[in-house]
Order: sequence, then C-alpha cells, then structure tokens
Amino acid sequence: MKKGNTIFFENAPCITSFAAICGSKEKEGVLGSFADITLEDDMYEESTFEKAECKMLSTVVSLAMQKGGYTEKDMDVLISGDLLNQIISASFAARDFEFPFLGVYSACSTMSESILLGAALVNAGYIRRAVAATGSHFASAERQYRYPLELGCTRPPQAQWTVTGAGGCVITDEKSGIKVVNGTLGKVCDFGVTDVNNMGAAMAPAAADTIMQHFKDTGTEPSDYDMILTGDLGALGSRILKDLTWEKGYDISENHVDCGEIVYKVIEKEFQGGSGAGCSATVLNSYIFSKMQAGLYKRILFAATGALLSTVSSGQGESIPCISHAVQLEV
Amino acid sequence: MKKGNTIFFENAPCITSFAAICGSKEKEGVLGSFADITLEDDMYEESTFEKAECKMLSTVVSLAMQKGGYTEKDMDVLISGDLLNQIISASFAARDFEFPFLGVYSACSTMSESILLGAALVNAGYIRRAVAATGSHFASAERQYRYPLELGCTRPPQAQWTVTGAGGCVITDEKSGIKVVNGTLGKVCDFGVTDVNNMGAAMAPAAADTIMQHFKDTGTEPSDYDMILTGDLGALGSRILKDLTWEKGYDISENHVDCGEIVYKVIEKEFQGGSGAGCSATVLNSYIFSKMQAGLYKRILFAATGALLSTVSSGQGESIPCISHAVQLEV
Repeated sequence: MKKGNTIFFENAPCITSFAAICGSKEKEGVLGSFADITLEDDMYEESTFEKAECKMLSTVVSLAMQKGGYTEKDMDVLISGDLLNQIISASFAARDFEFPFLGVYSACSTMSESILLGAALVNAGYIRRAVAATGSHFASAERQYRYPLELGCTRPPQAQWTVTGAGGCVITDEKSGIKVVNGTLGKVCDFGVTDVNNMGAAMAPAAADTIMQHFKDTGTEPSDYDMILTGDLGALGSRILKDLTWEKGYDISENHVDCGEIVYKVIEKEFQGGSGAGCSATVLNSYIFSKMQAGLYKRILFAATGALLSTVSSGQGESIPCISHAVQLEV
Repeated sequence: MKKGNTIFFENAPCITSFAAICGSKEKEGVLGSFADITLEDDMYEESTFEKAECKMLSTVVSLAMQKGGYTEKDMDVLISGDLLNQIISASFAARDFEFPFLGVYSACSTMSESILLGAALVNAGYIRRAVAATGSHFASAERQYRYPLELGCTRPPQAQWTVTGAGGCVITDEKSGIKVVNGTLGKVCDFGVTDVNNMGAAMAPAAADTIMQHFKDTGTEPSDYDMILTGDLGALGSRILKDLTWEKGYDISENHVDCGEIVYKVIEKEFQGGSGAGCSATVLNSYIFSKMQAGLYKRILFAATGALLSTVSSGQGESIPCISHAVQLEV
C-alpha cells in the first residue's frame, strides 16, 4: 500500500542480522567499539584502495549472513551500490556470491535505497531474504572525486571526510529483529548549489523534502521518533536541515542526529564530519542497530542523503542534484 | 511468488506506452522508422555530449508519459540508470520530474533491471505506475571508457559501437498493452575475460546463465518464445551464447536475436554491432514493442546484458564481471 510517496510494509519484513567494518580513523570514533571489524591498515591487505573497498563490502555481506546463521543458499538477492564509477565495489563484491545481484545507485543514500527495495521485495512475498549493503573508502573517493592523496591538497572548512567502512544487513520475512515498517521514496532536489566541497548544503533540501513527505504520508510528527537519522549532512548541512524543516512547522532539533556528525571523535580536523556511502552504512549497521536491539531506541526514521554529481557534471558547470530515501525502523 | 531466481507477477503489470529516440547513425538502421524521434545532430542542441545524453533520457521519459496520456501526477516513480559515472544522465533527467526516483545500475542490463523492478513494485500494489528508462551516447561513452574522439584511435575487429539513443516505457496496473509476466534476477558471472574491447565474449556467459535459469524456473523451452532477445552481445557474443546454451541442451539458434546485431544497417564498419545501455533500450522501446502491439510477436524473453567494469578496474588488471536480468513479455 502506498500513500503519497511512502510504501507501507504490512507484513513487516525484519532486519535479523547486520555487520559493519571500519577503517583505522573511524575506529577512534563512536564506531570503534561497535563495528565487527576495525582495520589496522586501510589497505586491508590489498594492492589498491579500490580493491580494499570491495573487500570491505564483500566482508560485511559474508559477516551479516554468518551472524544471522545464514548461508549463501538462504539468500535470494544482494542489493548494493557504492560511490566508485560504475559501482565496481558492489559489482565485484557480488562476484563472490552465488545468488542474484541488483545494482543500485543513489550516492550516500544507497543504504536506505537498498533497505527500502529489499523490504519491498520481501514484504511482497517475492523473496524470503535480501542482503542490503554499501560502503566507501576515503582514499579511493579522494582520488576519484577530488585529488590524489599524494598531492597533499588542503581542505576547505566546509569539507567532509569520506568514511572508510562498509555496512550490511539481512532483511527477511522472519518475525524477529528490527522491523522495516515503511519506506519513503525520495525525489531529486536541486537548490543550485555548485560547490562540490559543500555537500551538506546541497543535500539538506533533499533530506528536508523526504522527511517532511514522510511525516505527511504517515501522519507522524518528529516527537514520534526516538531519532531522525540522516546520512552525512555534516555539521553545516544539519543546521540547514533543521532550519528548512522548522520553517515548514516541523521542529526536529530535539531528536535529529546525523551519522556524519557522530562518526568521528574529534571533528576539528574533519571540519564538518564524515561523509560517503560508508558513513551511514557503518553507523547504522553497528551502533544504531545494536542499540535498537538492546531496546534503547524503539522507533527511528533513517533518511540517508545522496549528492548525485560526478566530476564531469561539476566540470561542466552543473549544480548538484540530491536525493534522500527514508525507511522507518521499529523494534 | 518466486521460483529459483524468477519472480512471477500474478497481477500482470502492463507496459501501456513507450518511446525511443536515436541518433543520426542509428536512424539509418532498423530503428530509423520506428523511433519516435531521430536526431539530425547528435549534440541535440546541447553544449556537451553528456548533456545531450541526459536530454535524450529526459525526452523519452516525457514522451512515454505523453503517449500514454499520463501527466507527472500520474507517475509514482522513475527507475533509471545509465553508463556515465555516477549515472548522471539518469539523475539529472530525474531532476526534470516531480515524482520520486530510484537509481539503478547494471550497465547495459539496466533496461531489463528497471522493467523488472518497476513491474515488481506495481504487481505488489505498492505503486500504480512506474517509468523505466535508460540510454547511452556514443561520444560520451567513448571519452569516458576509451579515448576522446579527437584522438582518432583505430578500433579492433571485436569492438562494438555504443548506440546513441534512449528508450523508456510506462509500467502500470492497467490491463492493456504488453504484460510483464515474470522477471529472472541475474547473478554476476565472470569467465576471466580481460579484453575491454571484447564485451560480447565477456557478457555471453551471464546471458546464458540467466536465460537457462529462466527456462528452468518457468518450465519453458526456447521454442515457447517468438524471440529470445539479448541486449548487445554483438555478432561474436551471440555465437558464444548459442554455443554455451547448446552445450547445456538448449538450442536457441532458431529464435535468438541480439539488439546489437540488428541496430545498424551495415555492420562492417561497426564490426560486432551496437552496444551500450541505449542499444537494447531503443530497439525494445521502438521496433520490438511496436511489433508486439501489432501482434507479430506474442511472447518475448528480453535478457539485456551488462558488463560491470570500469576504467579503474581494467587498469588494475581485473577481469570483467557481467550480469543479465531478464523479463518475460507477452501480449
């Protein structure tokens, strides 16, 4: 059933297991003690950053299955995407598994898009189990989107730091774990921001649009949620989001949390906080899901946000279209 | 309901309208008279190839809606992706529409992946109408994947020619048009091919895997179909596909057609034929759907194939993982 842009999952598909891996820098942040694996070396015993990113993704898919007591035979589909050109981390990780693969892309909103689609397929009874996963790597993102690390470029104050990490979860028709209650499909929003170092400002309108659409479609309000969790707006983007929603009569300041803002311990060096598809993927699939399982949080709206630009579009003077898909999670 | 890797759509979502646009070179081929719009100039009045590609995609989405008598308000979601880094054609095209967007990526299999997902969402009753669309542009693909045209590089005999074109269709819960009966989810297959100019050989095993899985899951055989339509294996890839399926006891030689093989009039210059996400998108959404509507073809298995490589993965010595998603179409 759909109302507005929100699809309701009456059969309540559940996230029964989850796993996260993070890099050496992320280890020192809030994730450190909650991620299943933390890397000593961000190369992860591979010869390139891209291969390390792919290995992280493949590892969390395996680990999420393993933690739930599943084997490859139990899985119906892997839904995944990532930030690298042609989503090679996801595609190459999918090569490791003997079940189908659906490639998706919505930049840093890939985690919520893949959970939404997985829950939709399970809820409809098409499949029994899906793995939703994504990740990113600081070094591969820097050299693809910005400059090779070897150049030693300085970073502007509005810049964010791409998280090295990956997270994944298993969505099933079993009645235990964290329920995926509904999902709100995001629209592409473009407020004309062209500064590729200021993703938070570009993405905040998309997050605001989806979050307010969700409240409207579900008849809920901010206080109904223990947490409204955005992906990686960072410090500046989070402020803009709160302003934008407040203007429309929604005060989310009490319970809004941004994964990018909490992922690092000392944010001075990372300026606005973390970003990248791996940011919300690792925070959600470690700290957040653990706390939900423990009963600390009962109802969360997870609205990851993605900036749909490329180096080519920016080079051609285009602004940055953004999107945010959201899922409502409950225990 | 799912059997093996095939999802059955009991409520038979229907493709009620479709549209295709193609470039000046494609105009001379089989498409010429069936595409809704053919370009005189492949720049399509834009300043860059990438913007022309995006405009083609946006145009077919609008046109497919218009031909079906739909407005933006009637649409629930656009499901699209393309070959450019970070699927910018699809994302930027989505900016033109006031309804949600789901970004997908499976290279040249994007057309079948998006129809499959659209049909799944409609069949489950989540939404009423989805637009599935994709496209590609010869010049933007050449400069991103190979060499800028200005270099005037020669092409090896096993090379294919990326189609300049886009196609899209509207999938609805209305009971008229072309039925989407079921969809077979593809697995990633990698036979170790590393030659980026030989996509046909790389993709053939993925096509064979999905097509044979489809026969198994649905209890059908090659002769049950008027046509088994692959995306863009080209001349060489098609021969390999026929060999691979024949070895396993399926003779598809009688009714196999490859979009890449039929898209151009004179294939000598294009060697193996056409390729690119726009190849199967244009052929399917012009010639094939027109002939199905006219009753010439009653049942088609559409299995587009995608090569999931990037210039980075190839540069790092990786082989080419491939995938093929399939949908069964009937009138």
